[in-house]
Amino acid sequence: MSDYHSFTTDDAMRFADEHSDWFGEHSRLSCEKLGEDSLNLVFRVSNDKGRSLIVKQALPYAYCVGESWPLTIDRARIEAEVLLKHGKLCPELTVEVLHYDVTQAAILTEDLKEYRMLRDELVAAKQFPQLAEQLASYLANTLYYTSDFALTGPNKKQQVGRFLNADMCLITEDLSFTDPYCNHERNNITPELRTAAQQLWHDDALQAEVAQLKADFLSKPQALLHGNLHSSSIFINDDNCKVIAAGFGFYGPMGFDIGNVLASLLLNYIGHTGLTEDVGHRQQHQQFLLEQISALWHQFDSSFKQLMAQECREPMLQNTAYQQRFISQIFADALGYAGCELIRRVVGMAHVADLEQISNKTLRTECEHKALKLGRQLIMQRRELANIEQVLTMLSYLE
Amino acid sequence: MSDYHSFTTDDAMRFADEHSDWFGEHSRLSCEKLGEDSLNLVFRVSNDKGRSLIVKQALPYAYCVGESWPLTIDRARIEAEVLLKHGKLCPELTVEVLHYDVTQAAILTEDLKEYRMLRDELVAAKQFPQLAEQLASYLANTLYYTSDFALTGPNKKQQVGRFLNADMCLITEDLSFTDPYCNHERNNITPELRTAAQQLWHDDALQAEVAQLKADFLSKPQALLHGNLHSSSIFINDDNCKVIAAGFGFYGPMGFDIGNVLASLLLNYIGHTGLTEDVGHRQQHQQFLLEQISALWHQFDSSFKQLMAQECREPMLQNTAYQQRFISQIFADALGYAGCELIRRVVGMAHVADLEQISNKTLRTECEHKALKLGRQLIMQRRELANIEQVLTMLSYLE
Repeated sequence: MSDYHSFTTDDAMRFADEHSDWFGEHSRLSCEKLGEDSLNLVFRVSNDKGRSLIVKQALPYAYCVGESWPLTIDRARIEAEVLLKHGKLCPELTVEVLHYDVTQAAILTEDLKEYRMLRDELVAAKQFPQLAEQLASYLANTLYYTSDFALTGPNKKQQVGRFLNADMCLITEDLSFTDPYCNHERNNITPELRTAAQQLWHDDALQAEVAQLKADFLSKPQALLHGNLHSSSIFINDDNCKVIAAGFGFYGPMGFDIGNVLASLLLNYIGHTGLTEDVGHRQQHQQFLLEQISALWHQFDSSFKQLMAQECREPMLQNTAYQQRFISQIFADALGYAGCELIRRVVGMAHVADLEQISNKTLRTECEHKALKLGRQLIMQRRELANIEQVLTMLSYLE
Repeated sequence: MSDYHSFTTDDAMRFADEHSDWFGEHSRLSCEKLGEDSLNLVFRVSNDKGRSLIVKQALPYAYCVGESWPLTIDRARIEAEVLLKHGKLCPELTVEVLHYDVTQAAILTEDLKEYRMLRDELVAAKQFPQLAEQLASYLANTLYYTSDFALTGPNKKQQVGRFLNADMCLITEDLSFTDPYCNHERNNITPELRTAAQQLWHDDALQAEVAQLKADFLSKPQALLHGNLHSSSIFINDDNCKVIAAGFGFYGPMGFDIGNVLASLLLNYIGHTGLTEDVGHRQQHQQFLLEQISALWHQFDSSFKQLMAQECREPMLQNTAYQQRFISQIFADALGYAGCELIRRVVGMAHVADLEQISNKTLRTECEHKALKLGRQLIMQRRELANIEQVLTMLSYLE
């Protein structure tokens, strides 16, 4: 990284101008720093005709935990390559990458000005009837076509080697699968949740299941995952959604991406049980979420089965009974990873607005307890749960 | 591979002399080509005082299937690095690598002149009371210390990337997990076995299980395996044994190495049921094999559990219930892979002397049927079999 330097707004403007023909000649460009997320600098470069692009540059350390957690800026290459690969498989649902530069760890993408972050929209109780269908399509296509069903052994191994992404995976290994289950200083636990957190630290049965999910996260390279598919990595408007921010991409268990999407919807559902807004609208939003959770799984299940039946290149994996068991195992994994996500968003380092926005402390604590309870149930019962409707039933018993 | 060329005996002699101080000064060296196995040239370089070393050079294609199956000579690096790594973990049971050269794809190792190939010895009904103990120790140490129990996520991923070994894995994927289950031209099926082979090709239930084992071979990087741990890769004498020939090494499911060792013992057991030699000695040899099969698993199980209990560096994987389930899953995998090995050695391309040596064709065919039957049982029942004694009972019912 000898030639790497953090971009100024001028650098970002030059980068965008040099590497696209988006702005045309004689454009007057301007650049605005949209701020820094925990790991990156983000700039919007615009011309005077209202056209714009986004420049994202990886920082050589994770802001959230200070310079003590060094991260290789190779994650910018990984982010760009994951988005390009997913973009080929699902162009309409993946943010378009126009260029990336390995030395500067910088990526040039389309600007999703017409879109908003899904998390913010869900917190505001906005509803998107095609959300589940779109995300199921993204998941089925990106997971299927990067798996052993579609790639030869050697091709798949080459991909695994390109996307090891050790540093970024370590963040998830620690924050999602270790910290919540011990008294770690990185945890962020309100006094009201302390007793519940302590129960997690001594829950051997739960920890045995989380150990399995963590071991699979470490050693089950089924497909090229997005790796961080929360509602903050999905941008949306009334017509469409786009997946962004694939810096955590790696070859891992398919259920991890699916579980994170499910968890985002579940957390939003639980969060709305703690709001004292218009009850009618709240119930309508929750009904929307239940439908989307159900549709997400059913449509993923149906698309993935169709792909396995029609597109499988690997002769032994064409076996119907094997495919049926494979999808059941993906379902169980997805529920387990959704459960881990619910738990870590309550007691781990990084919380979510879906719960944090609840201003009434008593109600928020109640919601957090619900998330912990559902998370534990999903992890413990994931292999017995036969279908997504049973998950919705569990959800209804929380209230 | 621009500077690569196949070694002459002179090249091999020079290579051995330059890269070791084994021979001392003023030695007169000689070199003998020990022949070619399917993938390599092998030379013995000796001095006039009876000291000797082995030079092994990878050929850029697999002899067994002609030049149509090109193989990267990078497998020499992999072989050397696997042996060096396993040698650090288990020095007394791994052949010593003195030097390796990436460009020439050549490896210099100790000469195991005092040892003989385990397969030949077992075919000759020789018995080695410490065989199981030694192999269990090799398996427990090499598998444990290269796994997620012992390595951090980033260290493990780096190792996975160094040992992808796509070409060599593809040979196993095809020969062990695909060919026997379809009418493939590479198969080597005697007319007497044709009907039994055809049953395999239409056995959907069996194929669903083999699909799972193949998928795990492709996507379950639990530990750095030897990858080809048959009795032909183990050299032995009355005191000790040494593992050689790690060119198939890769990160895969632990049960694969264990299953191959079990299969070598099972195939030898079955082979001896077809011999009309001295019945007393035959029964004694078979009793020896039963004891070794049992001891191999029990000692692996006990060593691996002790390592997990005392040495585990990964906090979540210290959970006792998880560890118990992990070892049960290794057992099931090992039985499944042993079953695949039994089947492919009867109907696949590469057969074994344990069965081939039976000169009476009727008896040989009977033994081959037994191997197929036991192979299928192990694959189908691997998750229900609670302990190794149940496997021995299955074996006794074959006669």
